[in-house]
Amino acid sequence: MSSKVLIVGGGAIGGFYGSLLAKAGAEVAVVCRSNYSTVKQHGYQIESYALGKWQFMPGQVLRYAADYQAQADYVILCSKVTADIDRVGLIRAAVTKQTAIVFIQNGVEIEQELQQAFPDNLLISGLAFICCNRTAPDQINHLAYGKLTLGSLSADHVGKTQHLRDLFLQAGIECLVSDDIIASRWQKCVWNAPFNPLSVLSGGLATQAILQNQEDFVRQVMQEVCNIAQACGHPLPVDIIDTNIAQTRVMPPYKTSMLLDFTQGHAMETEAILGNTVRAAARQNVDCPYLKSLYALMLLRELQIRTNIPLA
Amino acid sequence: MSSKVLIVGGGAIGGFYGSLLAKAGAEVAVVCRSNYSTVKQHGYQIESYALGKWQFMPGQVLRYAADYQAQADYVILCSKVTADIDRVGLIRAAVTKQTAIVFIQNGVEIEQELQQAFPDNLLISGLAFICCNRTAPDQINHLAYGKLTLGSLSADHVGKTQHLRDLFLQAGIECLVSDDIIASRWQKCVWNAPFNPLSVLSGGLATQAILQNQEDFVRQVMQEVCNIAQACGHPLPVDIIDTNIAQTRVMPPYKTSMLLDFTQGHAMETEAILGNTVRAAARQNVDCPYLKSLYALMLLRELQIRTNIPLA
Repeated sequence: MSSKVLIVGGGAIGGFYGSLLAKAGAEVAVVCRSNYSTVKQHGYQIESYALGKWQFMPGQVLRYAADYQAQADYVILCSKVTADIDRVGLIRAAVTKQTAIVFIQNGVEIEQELQQAFPDNLLISGLAFICCNRTAPDQINHLAYGKLTLGSLSADHVGKTQHLRDLFLQAGIECLVSDDIIASRWQKCVWNAPFNPLSVLSGGLATQAILQNQEDFVRQVMQEVCNIAQACGHPLPVDIIDTNIAQTRVMPPYKTSMLLDFTQGHAMETEAILGNTVRAAARQNVDCPYLKSLYALMLLRELQIRTNIPLA
Repeated sequence: MSSKVLIVGGGAIGGFYGSLLAKAGAEVAVVCRSNYSTVKQHGYQIESYALGKWQFMPGQVLRYAADYQAQADYVILCSKVTADIDRVGLIRAAVTKQTAIVFIQNGVEIEQELQQAFPDNLLISGLAFICCNRTAPDQINHLAYGKLTLGSLSADHVGKTQHLRDLFLQAGIECLVSDDIIASRWQKCVWNAPFNPLSVLSGGLATQAILQNQEDFVRQVMQEVCNIAQACGHPLPVDIIDTNIAQTRVMPPYKTSMLLDFTQGHAMETEAILGNTVRAAARQNVDCPYLKSLYALMLLRELQIRTNIPLA
């Protein structure tokens, strides 16, 4: 019997990974927000550097999780983690006792909210290491990488996590189950914490230009994230900074997700990526002046956007 | 006999202080760049919160210092300190043996360039503590403060510095001669180092909004400037940070000079204010991660402006 999957958040990440699960035979429904009518009519057109081009027509395209006409084996939350998005409210109506709740989202220390709201459900934390943008409401462009890391937040039920991994593997994307998904989350933050805010605060530089001109600064920010992760009990690999720098150097020039949100006037994941990191540092008594600078500047940048005072 | 003064750089600072010297009876000529023809025709219209409204018609309005038809007692350089401005070249043609070279400019460690070019002239370092903007090519708006601090860079010739002070006092503006003008320059940097870059990097916030939302961060940056000044042999008053914060709180909401340059597409004083400060810190082995963050971000912001990649 094929798995029933509800993707909540039909942007680049949700559309892309949802399409892979459909390829692997799952029955995939998608809750869309701004692109509902386009996706309802045409589905998604996906173009991947690695997997070719294909169309993905979800079994159901919905406005709300409450409209879902099935019992979900997996509800996969792929929204941004921002103050204007109620992550719990977005999925609650489609969650039953049997539902595994998966969140493929950025940021550190974002588990607690879902754990508190759904204490009896299996929670699977997911991280997408991918360059993937939505170039139109129904167009998804997969530019580089693609690996998904999954990790169950409870020791039991590993079977359901492994089954999800197997579906992704079947569809041709790298996927692994992590024993310490919290550490993996910090690991991803090593890249996100410098490049996301720097792309916005620089006024729109791509990752390559940032790295070519401020590699030392990027490394300092990365080192602070490593220090905080370690203090939180999740030491990261010793070569993680060098690896991140080397990989970024060979990445195609990339506009970060925060920069895309910024240019499109969407809320940015400042709290999930920087705020939670700085708060974890404060809790653990770890000094992190570079991260605090980026966080302070992002808060001012967001304040300016909210108050919308014209520049000239 | 009245003093002969050549103002080089006819923006807000040059026009305002030049007009005061004219009020005090000096023969004032001005070298203008972008606003040459307007000022040549109409002079300046000045509106001061403290001194009323008046018109200032310079004795000569010039395109270049070489066009100056007199022997200058004082050449007062009021340009920005940016990479695209040749400070020495701007004034050289009007400097004679008798000329005292005054520079009313922002930044730290900006003396050396002029000392090397004019080793035999009296050099007077000047600092304007003023909120003063040019609102049109010939319109100057003096919003708050106004104090000028002058300091001779050589022990002798104090008479010429005092005479200049007397002229400013006579015109009704606060002016004092500092025994340690280098320390005064660091003192001004305490305010400039946080507020100038933060106004730009936030996308245009005024000083009040920055202070209301990120006072801790502002204080950290200020503390680093104090640490560097001290290491350079110029300890600042112990209450300088509190004083700056308190004064900024009661200032009218103010767009910094760097923000005005940014919005007008002009070069910014990043090196004079941040670069020189960070380099002094490195020389003295003083840690300054907050300043380094601001500096790195300003360099990226400037890179983005130069490469002019559209945002969307």
